[in-house]
Amino acid sequence: MNKRHSKPFLLISNDDGYQAKGINFLVEVLSPVADILVVAPDGPRSGNACKITFDEPVRCRCISSRRGLTVYACSGTPVDCIKLAVSRLLKGRVPDLVIGGINHGDNASINAHYSGTMGVATEGALQGFPSIAFSLCDHSPEADFEPLRPYIVDLMFKAISIGMPPMTCLNVNFPKVSKFKGVKVCRMAHSRWTNEFCQRKDPRTGAPYYWLTGECVSLEEDAQDTDQWALANDFVAVTPTTFDCTAYGLLESFTKIL
Amino acid sequence: MNKRHSKPFLLISNDDGYQAKGINFLVEVLSPVADILVVAPDGPRSGNACKITFDEPVRCRCISSRRGLTVYACSGTPVDCIKLAVSRLLKGRVPDLVIGGINHGDNASINAHYSGTMGVATEGALQGFPSIAFSLCDHSPEADFEPLRPYIVDLMFKAISIGMPPMTCLNVNFPKVSKFKGVKVCRMAHSRWTNEFCQRKDPRTGAPYYWLTGECVSLEEDAQDTDQWALANDFVAVTPTTFDCTAYGLLESFTKIL
Repeated sequence: MNKRHSKPFLLISNDDGYQAKGINFLVEVLSPVADILVVAPDGPRSGNACKITFDEPVRCRCISSRRGLTVYACSGTPVDCIKLAVSRLLKGRVPDLVIGGINHGDNASINAHYSGTMGVATEGALQGFPSIAFSLCDHSPEADFEPLRPYIVDLMFKAISIGMPPMTCLNVNFPKVSKFKGVKVCRMAHSRWTNEFCQRKDPRTGAPYYWLTGECVSLEEDAQDTDQWALANDFVAVTPTTFDCTAYGLLESFTKIL
Repeated sequence: MNKRHSKPFLLISNDDGYQAKGINFLVEVLSPVADILVVAPDGPRSGNACKITFDEPVRCRCISSRRGLTVYACSGTPVDCIKLAVSRLLKGRVPDLVIGGINHGDNASINAHYSGTMGVATEGALQGFPSIAFSLCDHSPEADFEPLRPYIVDLMFKAISIGMPPMTCLNVNFPKVSKFKGVKVCRMAHSRWTNEFCQRKDPRTGAPYYWLTGECVSLEEDAQDTDQWALANDFVAVTPTTFDCTAYGLLESFTKIL
């Protein structure tokens, strides 16, 4: 925890935009117990993964500022928000924790790879800060985040006191239920998206166009140690995640072959 | 290899767009020995990571088609290209290998997380196909890809004959030299981007805006088993990469704490 401050200092972003219910619930829950800097996109950036913006300038404006809580809206991606905070807005202050979320929608299993919420936690970790992503398995803009309240505070303090090894973060997903059975530390389930692009016909030209949709199919339904299993059984799924993506188990065999 | 075809069948995309020199060099080198479907973005998508498009329709048009080589240009991201190919364009045909590249620019170390070229290989792997990403450490649109020619063919055939375990791919980076010292199988170096957003002043309003720039600093300069070391020493860097990002080493300790 920052030595000059009695409260922890949090850097928060998301991919649903600074006006989304999820991030505002997060700030409401944490602002009594933490100093907070929000740097979040100025609109929806779902599915932005770790996208960065270097082909156009990024703009940023201060939405509000009071003691212990400052909010910026940024024209860039979730990762841009964290990079901009580190480069320009933190002014040397070191966050005790970087938080992405609370996302409206599931970021478990392979969905972590597409998630802008996980982009926030990825960038936080790559910048060397303990980082955590929170997601609720409910895409509705009016999703009910109230059941998450005690878990958010508890996990925030635990993540700070435990610390995280370099290049790692916690990916936390909450099932859409009113009462959780508890917390499960679990691995990322292997799954696969199918039937993803449906075709429509342009009413003017007759040319086809495509909408991303589809369904996520589990590749290991029987496994009971995965985030998908935890969520399906009403547990909060906490997946320790690494950004050193080296497949260490393959180094020796590929060295012999290549 | 596809049983019904004597040549391997390759699905190719990139993040520099279908007109870039890198992907056209790749196709030129491989089309004599493989059947190829190119589904690539219709313009630059560098830094798109694993971004997916679901807030607007995606369009796709056939640029050219002859025996053994068909090229589509797609309005979406690199990952969209692979998803669209699998959903709509492959028509059940199974690629022997998905290839991203050849990228104009380095995708080693943590840059893999931001790379649209790695987005191609990530999505290929998540769809269950052996996948490989090729990048040359030269951002120039006129980069010289000629030294890569024999390595591309060799690595393509090896990747197919070896196969890849589920959720893994090869991230291959070539240094900008006329002659490589050989191939090193290596791990992803830990590094950090600093000084990333420089500030400019809008000449009309005086408001600040920001450009992404910065420098990538190694966090482990002495290590000799990393992709950054291999590239700095004129070796082709081959990093086996996994998309199961569970930090397995942390599961037990976090289970005790949370």
